[in-house]
Amino acid sequence: MDLTALARANPDHWSKATAIRALTLDAVAAANSGHSGMPMGMADVATVLFEKHLKFDASNPLWPDRDRFILSAGHGSMLIYSLLHLTGYEQFPIEELKNFRQMGARTAGHPENFLADAIETTTGPLGQGIANSVGFAMAEEMLRAQYGAKVVDHHTYVIAGDGCLMEGVSQEAITLAGRHKLSKLIVMWDNNNITIDGPVTLSDNTDQVARFKAAQWHVIEIDGHNPDEIDAALTEAKASDLPTMIACKTHIALGHAAQDTSKGHGALTDADQMADAKKAYGWTTGPFEVPSDVKSAWEEIGKRGADERRAWEERFDKMPRAKRETFNRALALEAPKKMSATVKAFKKQITESAPKMATRAASEKALEVLNPILPETVGGSADLTGSNNTKTSDLGVFDVDNRGGRYVYWGIREHGMAAAMNGMALHGGIRPYGGTFMCFTDYARPSMRLAALMQIPTAFVMTHDSIGLGEDGPTHQPVEHLAISRATPNTYVFRPADAVETAEAWEIAFTSKTTPSVLSLTRQGLPTVRLEHKNNNLTEKGAYVLADAEGKRQVILIATGSEVHVALAARDLLQAEGIGTRVVSMPCMELFAEQDEAYRKRVLPGGAVRVGVEAGMRQGWDQWLFGERGKYGKADFVGMDRFGASAPAEELFERFGFTAENVAEKAKALL
Amino acid sequence: MDLTALARANPDHWSKATAIRALTLDAVAAANSGHSGMPMGMADVATVLFEKHLKFDASNPLWPDRDRFILSAGHGSMLIYSLLHLTGYEQFPIEELKNFRQMGARTAGHPENFLADAIETTTGPLGQGIANSVGFAMAEEMLRAQYGAKVVDHHTYVIAGDGCLMEGVSQEAITLAGRHKLSKLIVMWDNNNITIDGPVTLSDNTDQVARFKAAQWHVIEIDGHNPDEIDAALTEAKASDLPTMIACKTHIALGHAAQDTSKGHGALTDADQMADAKKAYGWTTGPFEVPSDVKSAWEEIGKRGADERRAWEERFDKMPRAKRETFNRALALEAPKKMSATVKAFKKQITESAPKMATRAASEKALEVLNPILPETVGGSADLTGSNNTKTSDLGVFDVDNRGGRYVYWGIREHGMAAAMNGMALHGGIRPYGGTFMCFTDYARPSMRLAALMQIPTAFVMTHDSIGLGEDGPTHQPVEHLAISRATPNTYVFRPADAVETAEAWEIAFTSKTTPSVLSLTRQGLPTVRLEHKNNNLTEKGAYVLADAEGKRQVILIATGSEVHVALAARDLLQAEGIGTRVVSMPCMELFAEQDEAYRKRVLPGGAVRVGVEAGMRQGWDQWLFGERGKYGKADFVGMDRFGASAPAEELFERFGFTAENVAEKAKALL
Repeated sequence: MDLTALARANPDHWSKATAIRALTLDAVAAANSGHSGMPMGMADVATVLFEKHLKFDASNPLWPDRDRFILSAGHGSMLIYSLLHLTGYEQFPIEELKNFRQMGARTAGHPENFLADAIETTTGPLGQGIANSVGFAMAEEMLRAQYGAKVVDHHTYVIAGDGCLMEGVSQEAITLAGRHKLSKLIVMWDNNNITIDGPVTLSDNTDQVARFKAAQWHVIEIDGHNPDEIDAALTEAKASDLPTMIACKTHIALGHAAQDTSKGHGALTDADQMADAKKAYGWTTGPFEVPSDVKSAWEEIGKRGADERRAWEERFDKMPRAKRETFNRALALEAPKKMSATVKAFKKQITESAPKMATRAASEKALEVLNPILPETVGGSADLTGSNNTKTSDLGVFDVDNRGGRYVYWGIREHGMAAAMNGMALHGGIRPYGGTFMCFTDYARPSMRLAALMQIPTAFVMTHDSIGLGEDGPTHQPVEHLAISRATPNTYVFRPADAVETAEAWEIAFTSKTTPSVLSLTRQGLPTVRLEHKNNNLTEKGAYVLADAEGKRQVILIATGSEVHVALAARDLLQAEGIGTRVVSMPCMELFAEQDEAYRKRVLPGGAVRVGVEAGMRQGWDQWLFGERGKYGKADFVGMDRFGASAPAEELFERFGFTAENVAEKAKALL
Repeated sequence: MDLTALARANPDHWSKATAIRALTLDAVAAANSGHSGMPMGMADVATVLFEKHLKFDASNPLWPDRDRFILSAGHGSMLIYSLLHLTGYEQFPIEELKNFRQMGARTAGHPENFLADAIETTTGPLGQGIANSVGFAMAEEMLRAQYGAKVVDHHTYVIAGDGCLMEGVSQEAITLAGRHKLSKLIVMWDNNNITIDGPVTLSDNTDQVARFKAAQWHVIEIDGHNPDEIDAALTEAKASDLPTMIACKTHIALGHAAQDTSKGHGALTDADQMADAKKAYGWTTGPFEVPSDVKSAWEEIGKRGADERRAWEERFDKMPRAKRETFNRALALEAPKKMSATVKAFKKQITESAPKMATRAASEKALEVLNPILPETVGGSADLTGSNNTKTSDLGVFDVDNRGGRYVYWGIREHGMAAAMNGMALHGGIRPYGGTFMCFTDYARPSMRLAALMQIPTAFVMTHDSIGLGEDGPTHQPVEHLAISRATPNTYVFRPADAVETAEAWEIAFTSKTTPSVLSLTRQGLPTVRLEHKNNNLTEKGAYVLADAEGKRQVILIATGSEVHVALAARDLLQAEGIGTRVVSMPCMELFAEQDEAYRKRVLPGGAVRVGVEAGMRQGWDQWLFGERGKYGKADFVGMDRFGASAPAEELFERFGFTAENVAEKAKALL
């Protein structure tokens, strides 16, 4: 590339874009790690976006109607950190850039939403950002329908790399965006033909332009170093009634000796080469120094949106008070006042009628009363609506001609659904929940983990949660998936035993502000086990005594979900033989572990033998069986230690030992 | 549809295809569950494929040069069961069809490769079959290059549904197939516009034809009920030098009242509607009865390939003996005789030189000596070749003009890589291994689970296995992924402590016939801890005493991988204070759990306090700490209970307590 010509053609633009490149080189050199090439290649695109198109106000990063900027190619984190510093975000003084990738810095290796207000989402695992962005854009459409274009009217801009487009999840997201004509979603593809292993063509020769068009996107192809083309493309994109992909032909590590090579993807730290690159840019200041005129120009950009933000605030204040309160409550993730009473009434009615009901059906019933009082909920399913029981009567279906619809037919896209739900939660104003078969936790995993890391309360409705799924067989029967979700930090895994516990789980999930929930729900009918009404949410304690021992307590049975009624029946057998048996229902291990020692000891005192019962792998159970005042040799577990099988559910439960008789036998063998 | 016209146009074809439809209706009705519509919709395509194109011999389902038939839309399992019964496979008498979805039947809800010889792969989780098929087709190319077209020359045929194409993994696979011009891969898309939730257009309006073309496929569009068009398309597909997608426009549940509806996707069991459908087909025999002329015609098809198979056997017998032996050995998954001595020599050399080395680098060194004696290995990485250390000097790169290459640049497609590796293993003759960062276990999960369920020895090389990854931060630092893989049945999870254990892990992985392996390897350098050479593979025992207590044994430290040397240093501190301390290295929990009680007791006797050390979540550890003769209150764990952070690795290990001092303190606090 002829850098001189580039600089001469657009000198003001050039100096601003160069500031990004220079800061990137400096920060990566200081950290001695990171990814230099991507910010250097996309600096021109980002500069034009921030200067001329992105609606933002650096003094107010959380302004609800700001445009969202998502760096899907998260390894290029110095791009966003440079922009946030240059435009004057208070959380990004130059010291943060000097501390790039160091302990405690906001400038983590990859952008982390929970470290800074202006970082919309956590990216790095490729494809996630672009998939989040579909949720952001859907949330914008939904909220615009709900509150009007005067208060909700913004774009979602994404920078995505070749890696993002190779990951399957991006295709799930891209086809969704095309289907829903998310015209305010604009993706800028950093088309640099370089991956870590070499040129993209080593592993891919997809015609990306044709592929986006096949997904019903508008596509524009430009030189990603030409500010006029970038500007014109963004203007055209905003005018399109389809989502737009701008294919930006760029040079990775522009102007560096490693330009256009896979070496340029990584950390460019060679001092001489850095000096040469800066010289070629015409950049003469020292490390981390930005000439004051350039910094001033950038700061002006940071203030560009302030008037618009103030005008928005005035419009917002004119909205009817009730609407404003709902808007703010949803944004703050506060539960509506009515929720507690609604849940109590629901529980009371269940306790009185004591239905036999699958917990997936119970979940639908609970949602049927909760969705009307929570206008911020958005439900959906990955093509299993009737099986996941996620659609309630008042939601309406989100579609091109019904943006106010609150139910999404996600299609057979578990991963895309999870990532887009995360995007909705990150956007704010929406509480998303979505369903699939629990076994397909596997498909959604990368986004479920990110929900936990990002501290957002996405709710995953995982039905058909064991061999109780029956004939579909082991490909569809989860056995390790409770353990998988429980192993993930900051995740609530609920396995309710009946409709009462299911409603309690939903109350917690819909109150959570920083923790995602996994609801593990049965296909098959279960008896009501909570036959005495309690106003308190017992699931909130994680575990509780459901039925206590009569006489001397010799046995404690601990069970979850569909095995609680089996434990109760086993207790009957044991009590009939004079063996005092307590049954502990444990719908949420994480919440139980959070209780104080005194409570945990009341529920799980020492002395008695213990049997755990759960139609899943034992992993994670020993802490309650041998640990927690338990004793090696005095505890056993009735669970799965292999994959399931294809057969009717009742036969499978019998075959694998989930019977009152077997549980009672196991307990007696320990006495 | 005018069934009469269809029947009249091609009466012989019609009766054969109708047999599939009738058997499907009968089996689903008998089971009262299953998916009727797909087999009914694709019966014409499958009939023409089996009658005129598929190279197979029903009397010899394992003939190595057979064409592979993969039912990616696995819920339509009655399609394949009908075909296997009709063509006369011994394992599929009519009784199996009568027992559809019952305990112990080969006719499981979804096709399971481990239940019958003729089922090439386990499908049901959508997108997996088509992604497997890319591995099948690559394996065929590789083996053809290795053994010649006289003994390896076959096609891979796939039936895929709309769900397969919506799943992201299919796009990863499809773009791979396009890149590698896998011309012997032929996908028949069941284009019926129906999913469970409704018409496909509810959630997707992708132009699939354009999307396949964008991925460099040849595409043919046909009426999926017209046998002439089907035949011509298959002929054209076989002649193409690109992979071919045949878009077959079909009617789900053809001829049934539920035709063309989402109800038709599921179990059609209404007796009257069944009778009406059969009447419309002109099918007059009772349930599970196939007219003898139709059955005979199908059986002739089943015998069609017998001559070709015998001719192949003659050609095979003419191959040089050494080649034949290697072919048969690789197919039987037998290790070469030299392997044991090679591993021993490698270990001896390591023990003598005692290098400080990352286990990912040790893995490369081990592969460097193993790959040359194992011509069946195929390595690769999801665009992290230099980081995963998976490429050795002798492999060559698989490409369009180098089909004999044994290294695959998979691109940024962890899921597609895992699924295609499974396909290679299922094809036979190949032992695939492939790498990514351990954190991206999440992306590969659905296929890693299926490897375990399918009982195939795919090897997953998961490097950067903890916070030791450092600055890239928590998005890239696994903490729960050891627990996730350990929770999965039939999976070996190896976390070697040094180069000796790494070589031992590879020996086990490359000897395994029915269990996949996960190798958890460090980014950072580790000292050699096995300083005394042993011919025996100690990793095979799962855990062993690495350093015993001097004096009275008061403490047992149990550690894995990068924490073993920390435990050894803690032992030094404790012994210096006169506290007898044993260090147990536990590179594979699953193998240790398989040892007999006497061995386990020798390694983990009661009495001493225990501290586990592993830079991961505690889940799964309590069985070794409190269980296995351990005691509540007398055990502790040094691990992670949260996500990591972005900072240099050494600082993170310090921050999270992975120091000799902290481990020693924890032990002392228990005494």
